[in-house]
Amino acid sequence: MSAASRDKQRPSRRGFLLGAAGGLAAGMAANARAATPVPAPAALPEAPADTEPFWGVHQAGIVTPPQSHTYYAAFDLVTAKRAEIVALLQRWTEAAARLTAGETAASLDLDPGKPDADSGEAMGLKPARLTLTFGFGAGLFIKDGKDRYGLAAHRPAALADLPRFNGDQLQAARGGGDLAIQACADDPQIAFHAVRQLARLAYGAADIRWAQAGFTPEPGAKRTPRNLMGFKDGTGNPVADDAKAMAKLIWVGDEGPDWMRGGSYVVMRRIRIALEHWDRMKLGFQEQTVGRHKYSGAPIGLKQEFDTLDLDTADKDGNPLIAENAHVRLAAAVSNDGAQILRRGYSYNDGVNFTAERWPPWRQGMEYDAGLLFVCYQRDPRTGFIKIFDRMAKFDMMNQFVTHTAGALFACPGGAAEGEFIGQRLFTSI
Amino acid sequence: MSAASRDKQRPSRRGFLLGAAGGLAAGMAANARAATPVPAPAALPEAPADTEPFWGVHQAGIVTPPQSHTYYAAFDLVTAKRAEIVALLQRWTEAAARLTAGETAASLDLDPGKPDADSGEAMGLKPARLTLTFGFGAGLFIKDGKDRYGLAAHRPAALADLPRFNGDQLQAARGGGDLAIQACADDPQIAFHAVRQLARLAYGAADIRWAQAGFTPEPGAKRTPRNLMGFKDGTGNPVADDAKAMAKLIWVGDEGPDWMRGGSYVVMRRIRIALEHWDRMKLGFQEQTVGRHKYSGAPIGLKQEFDTLDLDTADKDGNPLIAENAHVRLAAAVSNDGAQILRRGYSYNDGVNFTAERWPPWRQGMEYDAGLLFVCYQRDPRTGFIKIFDRMAKFDMMNQFVTHTAGALFACPGGAAEGEFIGQRLFTSI
Repeated sequence: MSAASRDKQRPSRRGFLLGAAGGLAAGMAANARAATPVPAPAALPEAPADTEPFWGVHQAGIVTPPQSHTYYAAFDLVTAKRAEIVALLQRWTEAAARLTAGETAASLDLDPGKPDADSGEAMGLKPARLTLTFGFGAGLFIKDGKDRYGLAAHRPAALADLPRFNGDQLQAARGGGDLAIQACADDPQIAFHAVRQLARLAYGAADIRWAQAGFTPEPGAKRTPRNLMGFKDGTGNPVADDAKAMAKLIWVGDEGPDWMRGGSYVVMRRIRIALEHWDRMKLGFQEQTVGRHKYSGAPIGLKQEFDTLDLDTADKDGNPLIAENAHVRLAAAVSNDGAQILRRGYSYNDGVNFTAERWPPWRQGMEYDAGLLFVCYQRDPRTGFIKIFDRMAKFDMMNQFVTHTAGALFACPGGAAEGEFIGQRLFTSI
Repeated sequence: MSAASRDKQRPSRRGFLLGAAGGLAAGMAANARAATPVPAPAALPEAPADTEPFWGVHQAGIVTPPQSHTYYAAFDLVTAKRAEIVALLQRWTEAAARLTAGETAASLDLDPGKPDADSGEAMGLKPARLTLTFGFGAGLFIKDGKDRYGLAAHRPAALADLPRFNGDQLQAARGGGDLAIQACADDPQIAFHAVRQLARLAYGAADIRWAQAGFTPEPGAKRTPRNLMGFKDGTGNPVADDAKAMAKLIWVGDEGPDWMRGGSYVVMRRIRIALEHWDRMKLGFQEQTVGRHKYSGAPIGLKQEFDTLDLDTADKDGNPLIAENAHVRLAAAVSNDGAQILRRGYSYNDGVNFTAERWPPWRQGMEYDAGLLFVCYQRDPRTGFIKIFDRMAKFDMMNQFVTHTAGALFACPGGAAEGEFIGQRLFTSI
């Protein structure tokens, strides 16, 4: 079997291991220290069909049922040439189609005299429903007032600069970026592997700016996951497989530019949660802060998680059952002229670091650097996250337990048909 | 159903949700804003039996087949009283038995006027094969020359101070510690949840010093996982279900103090890997560095992963097929008078941070803070890790790609029988 025919067949990482022995041996006769072909193991089961489609009208990873792990990375463009960005997006698209199908980033020739085309740690693993979702930051269009690539006129108005919200404690190095990749998979090794291969393909054109791993429990379970505050997180989310709701709230339509039609805007916020503080609060206070009961997830005073949020009922003293500054009240669509976003967040856990507490007894010591990698998609962030969060940042009772330490906003173009590259319509329209 | 009888039954987190509605409602009549009981959902399947036993001759989490995730944390003792350490270990043992069985850390009374006895984020999740493995650092026995708890005379000789190895770049804040907990589970939320509950039970007695999350792909797969270098990692490991080998290499025997019999010593090393550097190396050079072929895992020149390592064969020029300073040669038992350790490592992935490269072209920028949370168990670290690593630290070709950024050594006491607490025989022998 020739190298060319191997490439054409695009063997899966698993198929490669099982079937490619003949071709490899031929390719390596020149060097006795080359990698040795692998005889087919007897007992390996077939890979299950746990792949998500890559090509399509929309990018995957937005309404895809959340996988258990994410590795989110953003890049600074360092090239001066628009053509190199086009070439990068072409390489990324080709590699992303392979990786999400469970293949290596490029076909391997296993030449011992060259660096490997794939770093190898996903070899033999399942595709794990990998999705790769690409986004463009404002810096692709204009940066420090400079129109680096002749794209400034094409910046969509919806790709706004995020305002400075009340309480923001943003670390520049952990947010922003000209390009972004959200990798999600049911295996953290698969998610990181994918970004690592794409970062290698960006050498000379774009450098990693920040990266953040995250997780959510039990993918595929048909119930709302709990975040690290112990409460169900996502009960009020619009339903991702309701195509009509997604067309209204999440996908860019005719208002678009053409290249954003079928795309969406993503807002990322890295939200550290003072878990030690939260854990010391009374259960009743936690529930009033959220506006829901902890174990059932039901709105305060009701029984079931999906009972309709009732913001008008008062207790016998005339106080609203759901407090005026409860998280769920401020976040609700009815409190925001119907504004809704599709949350797709993950918890993050970066160990501990030194923290000076801002509450009695003002303890100083090592505390969890853990919380929420908040990610949400919407048709227009000006009427989505920015509108909703502006009031929350000022009034949400939860703010005493959370700190937003980084933020970013990216325009995620519509999906690519096979043969196109991600964002192609932006570059061919000019 | 009374609170006492609920406690006695020790319902699982899932069982709690399904069955406890009556008891909860009774307990909460006093406060209309209290958590509302949850009616039994119709479609929840029974929890599978994915628990690991907690009580036994040995602690779990040592020869237990590796789970997909770990959260490893170490603590500094801040109490001045030995009795408080005993009380802490009693609380930890009781909670650990519950948590590993899939229960909450303590029985919940759901009193809205009190902090919750469990932070809640594992509610409804499977036990995920959680294991909790406790270790004692040298600081429990003597710290800064002080015998804080009258235990100095009981420090085992094998609980040595790790020497300073060649190339060490250890950050004190990321290593050491007086007590340690290794949590492993097939769900990162379960592993972190467990340590978080135990850390709460330590308030006033011990503070978290460091914590590190890690992962390994596809738990339960009957093959050697690949680490982030893309090579299979663990091929030469002794077989954990070979009881005879474990008795010889891993479990402390008659030589130990009584409380260490059936226990083991664990060495942790946080090893950052210069992945960007490694990825630029030629495949043949990577393989010579490791001493194995990348894809098959076979020793250089051989075909199968488990082919016997042959360190004597030379190529036609008289050079050994496996280089003198190849990783696998220096690590092999035959190169170390038969010394062997049981590796139980995880990859870690802490995003990126600023790095000044130490290789051409001396690039400065954001690079992966990722690598290996190396964890190994042995009967005696002086004849285990310390012996093996002393030469590796000086000569291993792999050292140009890895940096040891933290280290720790803990004595993990033998397991507890039901009714005992972990380490009890240390405290009752004095």
